[in-house]
Amino acid sequence: MTEKIKKSDQTKAKLLESMWKLILEGDKVISVKTITTKAGTAYGSFYRYYKNLDQVHKELIQYRASLLVEFAVAELVKIESPLLRFYVGYYFAIGMFQQENATQWLSKHPNFMNATWSEITEATAQAFLQESLESDDVPEFTQKNLDHYVRIRRYVFWTYQQIIRELSEGKPLQEIYLEFIDAVNLLDLPRDLHHQLANEAVRIASDFTFEN
Amino acid sequence: MTEKIKKSDQTKAKLLESMWKLILEGDKVISVKTITTKAGTAYGSFYRYYKNLDQVHKELIQYRASLLVEFAVAELVKIESPLLRFYVGYYFAIGMFQQENATQWLSKHPNFMNATWSEITEATAQAFLQESLESDDVPEFTQKNLDHYVRIRRYVFWTYQQIIRELSEGKPLQEIYLEFIDAVNLLDLPRDLHHQLANEAVRIASDFTFEN
Repeated sequence: MTEKIKKSDQTKAKLLESMWKLILEGDKVISVKTITTKAGTAYGSFYRYYKNLDQVHKELIQYRASLLVEFAVAELVKIESPLLRFYVGYYFAIGMFQQENATQWLSKHPNFMNATWSEITEATAQAFLQESLESDDVPEFTQKNLDHYVRIRRYVFWTYQQIIRELSEGKPLQEIYLEFIDAVNLLDLPRDLHHQLANEAVRIASDFTFEN
Repeated sequence: MTEKIKKSDQTKAKLLESMWKLILEGDKVISVKTITTKAGTAYGSFYRYYKNLDQVHKELIQYRASLLVEFAVAELVKIESPLLRFYVGYYFAIGMFQQENATQWLSKHPNFMNATWSEITEATAQAFLQESLESDDVPEFTQKNLDHYVRIRRYVFWTYQQIIRELSEGKPLQEIYLEFIDAVNLLDLPRDLHHQLANEAVRIASDFTFEN
């Protein structure tokens, strides 16, 4: 299968990769011209794959988010408690876009970012919670808490926009994570338990470095 | 003073008002042409007051938010408990943009909306909390709770984007308010007290109708 990647897919991937490089370099104009020049493809080839710049922004967010979630899940499953995975997952999620130029780019596309992020992470997060429920992981966490989460999660997703802005201003990851934990009522757990899980998550996650 | 409103200010106000009407009518193209036609002014007059369409979107959000906050504060000060004013204030804030076409427009401009909304409401909300603190209003509410609010409020502002989307889909105001109340940890008050204040706020506020 992998040997037979079509040329058209290669060009499309090259366009996405070039756009990502331009974003990471910062201060670069993101246009059809700069993307195709960077990719070494013809200007017109862009419109064979994308309707417009908005669409390629959207696909790039989807692509980066998928890659990063894949990486994160591979790490998270090493943690025994599924509920703790859920908390560490949020820490990872915040860390994933801490590259300054990436956060600036994301903050300009809040609607894409929010829709993509919720779409890509919702199922994984819920699976961890479901597993926690079924495995007698943390007795205080019950079906009621899972229902609470499902009811309010879409409000919480939007706080990611503030997280991105705090990252842009250089605030340390750990501080942002704990502010976020205090700002939301993720699972409606007792406050002490919520903080205990968050602090444990910080301990586990803070060794990680995230590569873009 | 009011008698001497300059003609240029009148034209500017007329452009804003025309844009608002186009938004409320829905399904209308918002362009320099449609705005100036609606206002009965020359096409070129637009660019005497605004750099581009983005700027007039921004000013319209500011203008509408200011009007609505003015209306809300006049009502809120009739409530004796300043802490309860704070809770009712959030209910009002949600109700203010429930006109379907307005929410659709706002959801397309999340960055403007968020910046404007926080800018315009922050001082009022904090003043209510400060007054609550100084007046022995609710004993459980202390300086620590106020500090909590100031630390996390910018995360909470973003949940307004989800509120707008729930409004767009026709969910009842009261239900959205209670979801919002459950999704965030506004003041870090004991959970029962938080819900008690929210339910009292619903009782006080649910008689209101909001005019656009």
